Amino acid sequence: MKWVLENVFSTLSIIIGEIVMNFLEILEKKRDKKELSKTEIEYFITAYTNNQVTDYQVAALVMAIYLNGMTDQETTDLTLAMAYSGEVLDLSTLGEVIVDKHSTGGVGDKVSLILLPLVSSLGVPVAKMSGRGLGFTGGTVDKLESIPGYQTAIELKQFVKNVEQIGISMISQTLNLAPADKKLYALRDSISCVESIPLIASSIMSKKIASGAQKIVLDVTVGKGAFMKDMEEARKLSNMMIQIGKLANRETACVLTNMNEPLGYAIGNSLEVMEAVQFLKGNMPKDLKQVVLELGAYMLQLANKGENLEENKKRLLENIQNGKAYHKFLELVQKQGGDISYIENLEKLPKATYIESIYSEEDGYIQEIDSKEVGKLAGMLGAGREKKEDAIDPSVGIVLSKKVADRVEKNDVLAYVHANDEDKLRETKIKLKEIVKVSNGIVEKGKTIWEVIK
Amino acid sequence: MKWVLENVFSTLSIIIGEIVMNFLEILEKKRDKKELSKTEIEYFITAYTNNQVTDYQVAALVMAIYLNGMTDQETTDLTLAMAYSGEVLDLSTLGEVIVDKHSTGGVGDKVSLILLPLVSSLGVPVAKMSGRGLGFTGGTVDKLESIPGYQTAIELKQFVKNVEQIGISMISQTLNLAPADKKLYALRDSISCVESIPLIASSIMSKKIASGAQKIVLDVTVGKGAFMKDMEEARKLSNMMIQIGKLANRETACVLTNMNEPLGYAIGNSLEVMEAVQFLKGNMPKDLKQVVLELGAYMLQLANKGENLEENKKRLLENIQNGKAYHKFLELVQKQGGDISYIENLEKLPKATYIESIYSEEDGYIQEIDSKEVGKLAGMLGAGREKKEDAIDPSVGIVLSKKVADRVEKNDVLAYVHANDEDKLRETKIKLKEIVKVSNGIVEKGKTIWEVIK
Repeated sequence: MKWVLENVFSTLSIIIGEIVMNFLEILEKKRDKKELSKTEIEYFITAYTNNQVTDYQVAALVMAIYLNGMTDQETTDLTLAMAYSGEVLDLSTLGEVIVDKHSTGGVGDKVSLILLPLVSSLGVPVAKMSGRGLGFTGGTVDKLESIPGYQTAIELKQFVKNVEQIGISMISQTLNLAPADKKLYALRDSISCVESIPLIASSIMSKKIASGAQKIVLDVTVGKGAFMKDMEEARKLSNMMIQIGKLANRETACVLTNMNEPLGYAIGNSLEVMEAVQFLKGNMPKDLKQVVLELGAYMLQLANKGENLEENKKRLLENIQNGKAYHKFLELVQKQGGDISYIENLEKLPKATYIESIYSEEDGYIQEIDSKEVGKLAGMLGAGREKKEDAIDPSVGIVLSKKVADRVEKNDVLAYVHANDEDKLRETKIKLKEIVKVSNGIVEKGKTIWEVIK
Repeated sequence: MKWVLENVFSTLSIIIGEIVMNFLEILEKKRDKKELSKTEIEYFITAYTNNQVTDYQVAALVMAIYLNGMTDQETTDLTLAMAYSGEVLDLSTLGEVIVDKHSTGGVGDKVSLILLPLVSSLGVPVAKMSGRGLGFTGGTVDKLESIPGYQTAIELKQFVKNVEQIGISMISQTLNLAPADKKLYALRDSISCVESIPLIASSIMSKKIASGAQKIVLDVTVGKGAFMKDMEEARKLSNMMIQIGKLANRETACVLTNMNEPLGYAIGNSLEVMEAVQFLKGNMPKDLKQVVLELGAYMLQLANKGENLEENKKRLLENIQNGKAYHKFLELVQKQGGDISYIENLEKLPKATYIESIYSEEDGYIQEIDSKEVGKLAGMLGAGREKKEDAIDPSVGIVLSKKVADRVEKNDVLAYVHANDEDKLRETKIKLKEIVKVSNGIVEKGKTIWEVIK
């Protein structure tokens, strides 16, 4: 095509070789809104993983995918290609159905810390690899690491052995899981193409498949502090992940949960560990309890440990009340090298220098606690990281005293700020007072579980 | 947004600084089908020219432009931003309206070599900078360089002086014209985003504006050997360039011409110079004559040298017949340091080692001579270049003996192949026989000038 503009252009990059030619055909197909074949998608992912296509060529393809979409079949092919772009964890030696649980993320989300020991105490094997958090607060691994001694980077053999011996192990991603997904996500982030349903769906599902999941329960958070801002988008994402699950032979259930306000009361790393332990000892914040029971009921069902969901919830509650879940957590911590005295005596966990309260200036009802804004404040205090290399401060964060719709009186404590820096403490207190909104009239509490899609 | 997928991703490229942030806003606007402002487009082009945004970010934007389009205003803003991204030739010292002529390219297109001396002989100042050709055959500059001694890379001062003294100078692009366009074109080429009307239109117009054109006559070629394959696309491109011309205050006329078969008879560098000189001496192939007269009539009109188009054509023909155009060409060659004995005696021009004919195997009429295929063959013989650095062989090429709709008899010469390599000669002869198609029945000749849009 170049030659026809002969008088216009004097520089030109010439692409030679079959590889780029093939990639351009794929790019042109998607540009022209045609469906890519499995072979084409595998070719694209392999070439990208092996640096055989340039970032700018893939960027053009990603924008074309963003604008022209992908069918369920294309998205499934992309998911599997990314899942198999690196190491894949084989958990078949465990001889049981491996059910993984994943959340699309939120503020105050300590569900994994509670739910996984809980289902393990009911015989569901838990072999969980979690990523570190990027953003306002740390991920599950960061939270576990606020327990002194807890080893998150153990050998793979030991990981599987722990599951065999005590039914649970929770570690960091020691394997090179789905490297194509990592590369693609970084690229999407730098070209404003993160918010694409097929790309989000395949990203999540590829990681789960690579980490050995045979069945998957997804906590799809919806609302201010979530990736999905409204139900319509959340439903689209859920349906697409369920379709991928069907086509990839990984049965999937999606629980759509409310993320307008933070989940539970604590936001921060060791603060969330404390709340999780207290939960396991029977002190269960209402919204957190609903989410744990709903997700747990589906995990038991998919693991063939109980067909009836209400029955499952009862059994989950029982194992909280009889202490079995808490003891499973202690067992886990001990097995991973953690010092359980920090769990038995939570006061020993890392504590911030400054712990100060903010108070209500009026009588009324809590109208709103924007979880995204609370998350940002926690991040500012040091509870999260922006870059992979950043260190996390386990002790800082925010603990709410009230939740949306709660009655408050003037001078009631609304929340506590845990900080290690005086300036940040001051700033957080001022901002937090604006975020925790009090209304005169009664406020209706939104649902915690929006709906379940299977 | 990163934090919400906290457990999924562990690597992430973090973009910092105002520049990229602004660029992402621009990218998001175009991704969401919104109109970019003049400031945003200027920002994008400046940042790209100065390497302040990455190729992959621009690649994503280009794909979004390809898929979501651009308004006339956006395309004009892009054109001007690219035109002013480098040096801009100021021809105002010449004190006359500078009318530029440009072709979207074709096979056998030696129009500039004929038309520019011709309009110059009628008082239209010609200050022409041409690019080298990329593709099957060379550009105007390559063709001029097949005349021994002709200097295409003269000082800018001398260039303007030549125009002042003899009314014409034709040189290569010594200035760094529209570097943003060059960069963007190379990128578009490597991500299959060349064929976008707003991007083609702005690319062409930016070069013209940067090279000092105040009014522009465009030869928009349509057909097999042209960039525009059909009239619908050609009309869209023409209308967009005319709109840019209006908004950028550069009056523009588009002549849509037939490029299904090569223009004239000769394809190749010195071969085309010969045909051009013969034309200037009155030996005018019919289709070439029509194109030269149509474009010339509009050039005279835009240069305020004659309102009436038919009258203009008569005056153009007069200056062929009275030898003024030919003498202007001789004057040009001499002024540029060329040896005019090569023009006065065309036999002296570089000649290929092998000149062989292909013959018709039957009686009939020429049905088709696919100009793209002929161009490819000429390129294969060495008449063109694929990369900027490639050398061109001025002597090789193809000279047709017949044109579409001509009557032929068995054993009539259909064309001559001029080659310097025996293998290439043989291959070209075989392929050319397939390309020059002969039919039994009478063939209707298509129009040479499809239409004119102003």
